[in-house]
Amino acid sequence: MGMGVGNPGEFELIRRLTSGLETRPDVALGAGDDAAVLTPPPGAQLVVTCDAQVEGQHFTRESASPEEIGHKALAVNLSDMAAMGAQPLWALVSLLLPRELPTELMERMYAGMRALARRYSVAIVGGNVAATAGPLTVDITLIGACGQGQAITRAGGQPGDTLLVVGTLGAAAAGLLLSESMKIPEALPPETRARVHQALCAPEPLVAEGRALAAAHAVTAMLDVSDGLAADLGHLCARSGVGALIEAAALPVDPAAEAIGRALRRDPLALALYGGEDYTLLCAARPGAVERVADAVRSVGHVACVIGELMAPELGMRLRTPEGSIAPLEPRGWDHLRPLS
Amino acid sequence: MGMGVGNPGEFELIRRLTSGLETRPDVALGAGDDAAVLTPPPGAQLVVTCDAQVEGQHFTRESASPEEIGHKALAVNLSDMAAMGAQPLWALVSLLLPRELPTELMERMYAGMRALARRYSVAIVGGNVAATAGPLTVDITLIGACGQGQAITRAGGQPGDTLLVVGTLGAAAAGLLLSESMKIPEALPPETRARVHQALCAPEPLVAEGRALAAAHAVTAMLDVSDGLAADLGHLCARSGVGALIEAAALPVDPAAEAIGRALRRDPLALALYGGEDYTLLCAARPGAVERVADAVRSVGHVACVIGELMAPELGMRLRTPEGSIAPLEPRGWDHLRPLS
Repeated sequence: MGMGVGNPGEFELIRRLTSGLETRPDVALGAGDDAAVLTPPPGAQLVVTCDAQVEGQHFTRESASPEEIGHKALAVNLSDMAAMGAQPLWALVSLLLPRELPTELMERMYAGMRALARRYSVAIVGGNVAATAGPLTVDITLIGACGQGQAITRAGGQPGDTLLVVGTLGAAAAGLLLSESMKIPEALPPETRARVHQALCAPEPLVAEGRALAAAHAVTAMLDVSDGLAADLGHLCARSGVGALIEAAALPVDPAAEAIGRALRRDPLALALYGGEDYTLLCAARPGAVERVADAVRSVGHVACVIGELMAPELGMRLRTPEGSIAPLEPRGWDHLRPLS
Repeated sequence: MGMGVGNPGEFELIRRLTSGLETRPDVALGAGDDAAVLTPPPGAQLVVTCDAQVEGQHFTRESASPEEIGHKALAVNLSDMAAMGAQPLWALVSLLLPRELPTELMERMYAGMRALARRYSVAIVGGNVAATAGPLTVDITLIGACGQGQAITRAGGQPGDTLLVVGTLGAAAAGLLLSESMKIPEALPPETRARVHQALCAPEPLVAEGRALAAAHAVTAMLDVSDGLAADLGHLCARSGVGALIEAAALPVDPAAEAIGRALRRDPLALALYGGEDYTLLCAARPGAVERVADAVRSVGHVACVIGELMAPELGMRLRTPEGSIAPLEPRGWDHLRPLS
C-alpha cells in the first residue's frame, strides 16, 4: 500500500490512525506492509464494493461532524454489502488529504468510522494516504463474503414479483432540503430535525436485514436505494429486464420527510421517489414468498412494506398516484426533484 | 458500488468505461451491480492493497499521457502485489473526476489501465465514479491470492541475511529531475530520455519476479522500492527489527540515471538511494539461499544484485561509500534528495 503525502509526518499520521485497529481472526496481516493478507471463509464467495465520499459533493465540514463523515463513508459501503445479502469482513481506507487538514479532524473521522466498523465486526486492514490540492476524500473498499451462489443481484426480478422496501424513504432528502433552506421553520420539533440530520449524515446500513433476506432465500432481486427510489428501481428493471408499477399510497415515506416537506412546501412523495441517499433496501419476491420476506425482516426487528409489483418490460415503469391515476415513472434521481417542487 | 457524479451522463460514462471489460472465470459478477462477486482460489489467502494517483501530486497531464496515467495507477498496485509474491486477480477502480474532464482523456486512461490489466490477467470488476472540485484521481484496490502462509512480508529479515535488489534504481528520480530541469542537456541521447520518462510515467511492475521468489521459498522479507531505497530499507529494518549495511558500489544504478545525474550535476548515487518510484524489489535472503534467489529471478529473465546485508538492530542503517568509509544511512526518501543536490 502506498504513501503519497511525502513528508515525515505522513508515517506518523498513518501510525496514529492505524494503531490499535480492531482485527479479526481471519486477518493474517493487517495495515503496515505492502498489502494485507486475509483468509477467506472456506467455500465462500467474495463480495467487493467501493464508494467515495468527497467534500463539497457528499458532505461539508459545516453540515457533518468529523465522526459523521467517517461513519457515512463506511456506511454507504456497508449498505452495498447489505444489498447483496453478504457479510462484511474487511475494509481498506484510502484518504486524500488537503495539506491544511487538522490532525484532530482526521482522528475524529477515523473514530466515527471505527465505531461503525466495530459494530459490524469489520476489520480495517489497510489503505492509503495521499496529499491532494482538492477536497478531503474518503474512499473505502469493502470486502465481504456470502455462500456460493447466494449473493442477491439486481438481475433476478420477474414480472409478477412483489416489490418491497425495508426502511423509510425521503428522510435524507428532507435533511438536504432543510440544510439548504434559508430559514428553519419554527414549528419543526427538534426530534424531526435530528432525525433527518442523522438520515443525511449518519445513515444506518441495513446489514442484518440484507443478510436475513439472503438466508431466507426469499427475494429474487435486491439493491440499496442510494440514487433515489425511482432511479434505483430503474436499475433493477433494466438489469432484470422488467417493468414495474409502484403504488404511491403504499410508499413508506419517512414521517420526518412528511413534516419537513409540508413545512417547506415540497411534495413529500417527490422526496420519497426522487430524493436519494435513503440506504434502505428495495427487493423483489415471488408473491408466494412475501410472507417469508416479512418474517425474515421481522426476525431482525424491522418491517418490509409492499410498494408495488414487477410487470412485463413493455409496460415500463409506472406510478399509481394517490388519486388513483396511472402515470409514467421516470427513473430519475435527485436532479428530478428540483423542477417538481 | 456508488455513483456520485449525479447527472445522467454519469451512467453513460460508466457504461462506456465498463463495457467489454476483460473478465476471468473466477468473476461470478462484474461491474454493474451493488458489488462484484468473486470466487477465490480454493485454500488460498487473499492479498489486498490500494494506492491512489493524484493529479498534481503523482502526475500532471502535461508530463504523462492519459494512457500512462492509467497504466501507472494500476502498475503501482501490481508492484505491491509483486512485493508480497502474490498473484494479482481483480481490481476495483475508483475515479474522482473534475467536471471539465474530456471524455476522450478518460477513455484513453482506461485503455492504458486495461492494456496492463490484460497483460497480467487482472479483471477490472467494478469501482466508483464521483465528481470532485479537485484534481483527477485514480484510486485502485487490487486483490490477489497466494498460498496459505506464503505471502512475503517486510518482517522476516534476520541479521546476516543478504540484501538483494531486482531491477535498477534512480531512473524515475532522474526522469523527475529532467522534467523539472529548465533546459534539456543537448548531449542526452533520446533513448536515455525515453528510458527515464518510461520509468517515471509507465513503470513495469515486477510481478513475475515476485511470484518466482515466493515460489522458490528463497527470501525472508521483501518490499517494493516506492519511497526510495533508503526509506524502504528503513521500513524493512523497522518491521524486521534489524540493522543493515549497504555497499554503495554494488547498487544497480540505472545507466540512464547515471547519464542524467552527470548531465544535471546531481549525484547518481543520491538518485538511487533517495529517489523513489523505482518499483523494483528489495529482498533479504539467508546467505545459503542467495543462489536460489538468483536462479528464481533468472528463470523469469531478470537479474538480482547483492547490495549489502542485514545486521544487528543496534548497528542501525549504514552505507559503505564508494571510497570505502562507513557512514550512517538516513531512511529518507525524495525530500532528502533536495538538500543533497
